[in-house]
Amino acid sequence: MGKIICTGLGPGNPDLMSVRSDRLIRQASHVAFFRKAGRKGQARAIVDGMLRDDATEHAMEYPVTTELPFDSPEYIAALATFYDDWAAKLTALSQTEDVIVLCEGDPFFYGSFMHLYTRLHSKVEMEIIPGITGMSGCWTATEQPITWGDDVLTVLMATLPQDQLIQHMQTADALVVMKTGRNLPKVRRALAAAGRLEAAWLVEQGTGPNQRIARLADMAETDCPYFAIVLVHGNGRRPELQASA
Amino acid sequence: MGKIICTGLGPGNPDLMSVRSDRLIRQASHVAFFRKAGRKGQARAIVDGMLRDDATEHAMEYPVTTELPFDSPEYIAALATFYDDWAAKLTALSQTEDVIVLCEGDPFFYGSFMHLYTRLHSKVEMEIIPGITGMSGCWTATEQPITWGDDVLTVLMATLPQDQLIQHMQTADALVVMKTGRNLPKVRRALAAAGRLEAAWLVEQGTGPNQRIARLADMAETDCPYFAIVLVHGNGRRPELQASA
Ligand SMILES: C[S@@+](CC[C@H](N)C(=O)[O-])C[C@H]1O[C@@H](n2cnc3c(N)ncnc32)[C@H](O)[C@@H]1O
Ligand SMILES: C[S@@+](CC[C@H](N)C(=O)[O-])C[C@H]1O[C@@H](n2cnc3c(N)ncnc32)[C@H](O)[C@@H]1O
Repeated sequence: MGKIICTGLGPGNPDLMSVRSDRLIRQASHVAFFRKAGRKGQARAIVDGMLRDDATEHAMEYPVTTELPFDSPEYIAALATFYDDWAAKLTALSQTEDVIVLCEGDPFFYGSFMHLYTRLHSKVEMEIIPGITGMSGCWTATEQPITWGDDVLTVLMATLPQDQLIQHMQTADALVVMKTGRNLPKVRRALAAAGRLEAAWLVEQGTGPNQRIARLADMAETDCPYFAIVLVHGNGRRPELQASA
Repeated sequence: MGKIICTGLGPGNPDLMSVRSDRLIRQASHVAFFRKAGRKGQARAIVDGMLRDDATEHAMEYPVTTELPFDSPEYIAALATFYDDWAAKLTALSQTEDVIVLCEGDPFFYGSFMHLYTRLHSKVEMEIIPGITGMSGCWTATEQPITWGDDVLTVLMATLPQDQLIQHMQTADALVVMKTGRNLPKVRRALAAAGRLEAAWLVEQGTGPNQRIARLADMAETDCPYFAIVLVHGNGRRPELQASA
């Protein structure tokens, strides 16, 4: 009997993977990962050069999405079937061997793996290995602490309605906005309405080879990268421990 | 010329350190870390058995705090002097060699290192290496995703006033509360007022050898661990991708 191990790969730079993930990935005989049809897959790209020559790769390709709106009942049903099918395949594989599922960042933090996890965890032995989140990689890239003192940090998905974005942007000290892409113009409007656009940074592909960092206000409005995070740093709520010298 | 490298150690289990941190710590000739006077230090404990025999250790001991209230001007002045002194010492050391500063979790996420960073980063060459946060270690330990779909996650310090805690606890989907300790009774009252106490978990020393997980409502009110995080999981805001079988 094997088990299903979902391992967090961290934000992109393979050097930022945990020692445990690194070891398990190099030993793995079965490796599964999500990807969009026709793409290499972000998670798979991170482990390039690390897999055994005889490892079997299982590319879990999302059902094609162009015809169906993201939130239509048809698309949701297609996704549910997709997750059911892969849950069954991974269960079958794990009867004899360990299966490593690769996950960007930290699996339990907005990870798609969650949809396999709910289907599998009562039936198969599983292990989840946390990873450095994409946001940690991104704020480190800005060379400024995201939070200190009593700062309140709120993490928002850019897919939320604009009024909800504004409300949270007004009440938190530090902000992280994920799933940007075509929602970025809405994020920009919400930040402006909350008076926080000037302080916002965008980090694309944080820690990866094509990392880009820009002030959001300086970017063209048509520039809407998908694999990007918007950040507003906190200022620390406690009395400053200023350098006395 | 050396540099000052602050490296995130992750939540506690040395296997969860990044490959890069692991390598740098094993090679280091100078290692600095914060600790309370008379303690071994949480960060130092994580790297036990990893340091070179001839590594020089620099224990940065916080000024004694028992007589002075945490937020008194005297204590704040003592802390500022403490950070000034260590900034000067590390700068001197880094003239000839690299200095590794150990930091629990991720350095830029509520890390004390921030107070050295503000003093040093314009004067010395520095590098910050992100780490798995304590909260990622803790929610992984609960064996449940902390967030999915469009969940809003808010991170709160237990040191905040109760009314502010309540307000954020009412508006976010998923919650993380850090710096618990003697503030835990207040956190408990705030969660109850926000209707979320029943769903709250406490994880002490997440991923470490003495990890403990409990429902907060089941714990004795007098049980107030310091190195602990309170979590409330999100439920996912999008239509469920339920298993169709
Ligand atoms: C479905 S979430 C997965 C989050 C992941 N589990 C984590 O822990 O970071 C995907 C979103 O994460 C963000 N993201 C993750 N890693 C990133 C990185 N290295 N650079 C920029 N954005 C990143 C992007 O906003 C993307 O839309
Ligand atoms: C000053 S903050 C430092 C946070 C750290 N930089 C991080 O990324 O997790 C210290 C607080 O982190 C929390 N904490 C960090 N790691 C933890 C762990 N492994 N288990 C429980 N609590 C932890 C506790 O609430 C503690 O009071």
